[in-house]
Amino acid sequence: MAKPVCVVAGVGPGNGLAISQRFAQADYQIAMLARQESTLEPLQAQVANSMALPCDLTESRDIAATFARVKAELGPPDVLIYNAGSGLFGAPLDTRPEDFTTAWRVNALGLLLSAQQVAPDMISRGGGSIIVTGATASLRGGANFTAFASAKAAQRNLAQSLSRSLGPQGVHVALVIVDGIIDTPRTRELFGDKPDATYLKPAAIADSVFQISAQDRSAWTFELDLRPSGEAW
Amino acid sequence: MAKPVCVVAGVGPGNGLAISQRFAQADYQIAMLARQESTLEPLQAQVANSMALPCDLTESRDIAATFARVKAELGPPDVLIYNAGSGLFGAPLDTRPEDFTTAWRVNALGLLLSAQQVAPDMISRGGGSIIVTGATASLRGGANFTAFASAKAAQRNLAQSLSRSLGPQGVHVALVIVDGIIDTPRTRELFGDKPDATYLKPAAIADSVFQISAQDRSAWTFELDLRPSGEAW
Amino acid sequence: MAKPVCVVAGVGPGNGLAISQRFAQADYQIAMLARQESTLEPLQAQVANSMALPCDLTESRDIAATFARVKAELGPPDVLIYNAGSGLFGAPLDTRPEDFTTAWRVNALGLLLSAQQVAPDMISRGGGSIIVTGATASLRGGANFTAFASAKAAQRNLAQSLSRSLGPQGVHVALVIVDGIIDTPRTRELFGDKPDATYLKPAAIADSVFQISAQDRSAWTFELDLRPSGEAW
Amino acid sequence: MAKPVCVVAGVGPGNGLAISQRFAQADYQIAMLARQESTLEPLQAQVANSMALPCDLTESRDIAATFARVKAELGPPDVLIYNAGSGLFGAPLDTRPEDFTTAWRVNALGLLLSAQQVAPDMISRGGGSIIVTGATASLRGGANFTAFASAKAAQRNLAQSLSRSLGPQGVHVALVIVDGIIDTPRTRELFGDKPDATYLKPAAIADSVFQISAQDRSAWTFELDLRPSGEAW
Repeated sequence: MAKPVCVVAGVGPGNGLAISQRFAQADYQIAMLARQESTLEPLQAQVANSMALPCDLTESRDIAATFARVKAELGPPDVLIYNAGSGLFGAPLDTRPEDFTTAWRVNALGLLLSAQQVAPDMISRGGGSIIVTGATASLRGGANFTAFASAKAAQRNLAQSLSRSLGPQGVHVALVIVDGIIDTPRTRELFGDKPDATYLKPAAIADSVFQISAQDRSAWTFELDLRPSGEAW
Repeated sequence: MAKPVCVVAGVGPGNGLAISQRFAQADYQIAMLARQESTLEPLQAQVANSMALPCDLTESRDIAATFARVKAELGPPDVLIYNAGSGLFGAPLDTRPEDFTTAWRVNALGLLLSAQQVAPDMISRGGGSIIVTGATASLRGGANFTAFASAKAAQRNLAQSLSRSLGPQGVHVALVIVDGIIDTPRTRELFGDKPDATYLKPAAIADSVFQISAQDRSAWTFELDLRPSGEAW
Repeated sequence: MAKPVCVVAGVGPGNGLAISQRFAQADYQIAMLARQESTLEPLQAQVANSMALPCDLTESRDIAATFARVKAELGPPDVLIYNAGSGLFGAPLDTRPEDFTTAWRVNALGLLLSAQQVAPDMISRGGGSIIVTGATASLRGGANFTAFASAKAAQRNLAQSLSRSLGPQGVHVALVIVDGIIDTPRTRELFGDKPDATYLKPAAIADSVFQISAQDRSAWTFELDLRPSGEAW
Repeated sequence: MAKPVCVVAGVGPGNGLAISQRFAQADYQIAMLARQESTLEPLQAQVANSMALPCDLTESRDIAATFARVKAELGPPDVLIYNAGSGLFGAPLDTRPEDFTTAWRVNALGLLLSAQQVAPDMISRGGGSIIVTGATASLRGGANFTAFASAKAAQRNLAQSLSRSLGPQGVHVALVIVDGIIDTPRTRELFGDKPDATYLKPAAIADSVFQISAQDRSAWTFELDLRPSGEAW
């Protein structure tokens, strides 16, 4: 029997890599998507049974072509992890319309387009999971998170529509609210003086994402938060 | 002394007209914005001290030109009512990317662009109000409200960012969550069998919008819901 | 015709007094309830058309007797403002069960008992308002707000049940979330170094409470927040 | 080395039994608490390494004695599952104060008292989990859920206070929102005509509860929902 297929859309050296590794460990074939081939290849080399697929997740045609290739080479995806994000910060009066637009395209439009690629096959086979990586900004528009928070809220309500529409058709949609700083070389450089207990480890995030994807359909989670023990909230 | 200026962005025969009339009654000069000149003119004729300005609220240049004209002819706005909405419904797999995009442009991008037009003058004069018309879909992504709910959530978090950023600078930002069917000739035709107690009267909505705009700055509301007594929630 | 009757349950020198004055100004007869006669009398002296009624809002029999007296002397209440609160703070492991219980009795049980006193008459006359004063703690359990936040959450869900049950019978129930420090002589002493823009003025709170009580039934608010312009949130 | 200890407070034939079995399967010693010895004993017989402890979770002294016995016989608990609930339904005007009080005592006061029994040992050993079973009513006060919804909201904010206070001290507190009907012989009798896809299986709930208790402290969940695929929400 063919191994199950997991697409991780939006792979970087933090969550995306760790999630890819976690599903690989559970014997999935992994399709790793990111914009830049140069970022993607060293990461793909660290994941068993994986392929790297450069893809601009804001472009409808690029998405369609990429998912067609996944289906042709690996088979229809059993799991889609939508992990594409973007870090555009700033106050409303300093936010350029083009950055506001890009944040929305990456976080919300890209999720719709990707879900439209995988959901029909999931429905016809009677199962599948779409798990989206959110952030505290999904729930709250901070003064200096204009583009990011608006895009993440658009993504959250879209994930709800997906869940309510696809759940009764057997497809599990979930949103993981990551609240805190993810432990990567880059964030350690930026926030290096913070105590260890305030960082989220990518492997721990990945483990919860995997557990959610494996839930029995009689008790599915739509939304859960993940937060390090030392984070004030 | 010049009369204060209120811009109502997104005027139709329901809320937009009623809000324009309510502020006119409080002796404001009213700038009424809507896409179609043909819709706008018969409505403008029902509002004292008003001018009609056709404007596509998804287009940056059109917005800039329109607000420049308001400023030149009436003076810098004291109040902006952002009432532009759009009724694109459907399940996620039936939602066309272009409709998903349009809903977001009207509800979220247009609000950012309009706020950027009026807020600097409000800050420099130390006061002003920006009031946004939301909906239940601002809080919840229903199975068949894909484009609308995602756009309204993007708008809500943007309104929060605006409030948190502009509030300490003296500008009041608020979001009115309208939960139910607004009483207009069109909705009576569509849902005519519903009892009277399940319709929101535009004049009642307009009255609460006006009261919110008039709150003392020591006790500002960011969010309130409006719902007819007969609505189940 | 008899003047309308407003009961303010939980009167102190801040909101309770200001709300009493605001309704008195609108020509209501005011029944002012508080536990201590000594606190109540100097406040009642500042409110036209008012009577002072000492009442322990955690005691069923005391509540019944007090509302019976209001009804006999002034008539059945048109408006009930439930403003009783309590400031028990502390971490969970430092919270004594008796303080946890008292906070709940004052904020939640007292509201149920008071609403049961006034609602039947409101229903039979086809109108009336019950407005509850909440706090940020109604929405969020902080580390050091154990008793208060748990009690305020109990009160909020109760207010929702009241609203959903009584609304279709013509009774308007609303919850006002006060977010910040109320400007009273005592809070100025405690937090005197805070800037003016971070205090809520009781008269401004009272004005919004009054406006909510006067809303047309086609567009009732259940929940609104009130926050000074200088409050970070 | 001694086996870890899990206390399940509030055991019935649904979640409580399944959670007990799930932790037993992971080689925990289980202390099963319920009010009636007669309910408890046949359930305890189905769980390996377990002891049955009749306990009234609304009574401070009973709780203290029970937890003292657990500590003496099994050792200090590593995990507390607070699963005590109560099904008092009805509209606000039909809700008797004594039923309103009992619901709050079982859901909120009992959690505080139980947490106070186990948290100090967890803190001193640098680890432990307290997981609370909530319901949709934790988030929403329905018209006919007066006592239950108010009590569940009190419990939720208390769980938040516990999490914010104890998390930085190494104790994981979480709230599981169960949304739907749990599949038990009793519910099948009551709602037997509902489709299978609308029931939550206790074993599936128990599995997620166990996974949450096993999360790495760098990525703890505070709140997650569990819902069957066929539940409309």
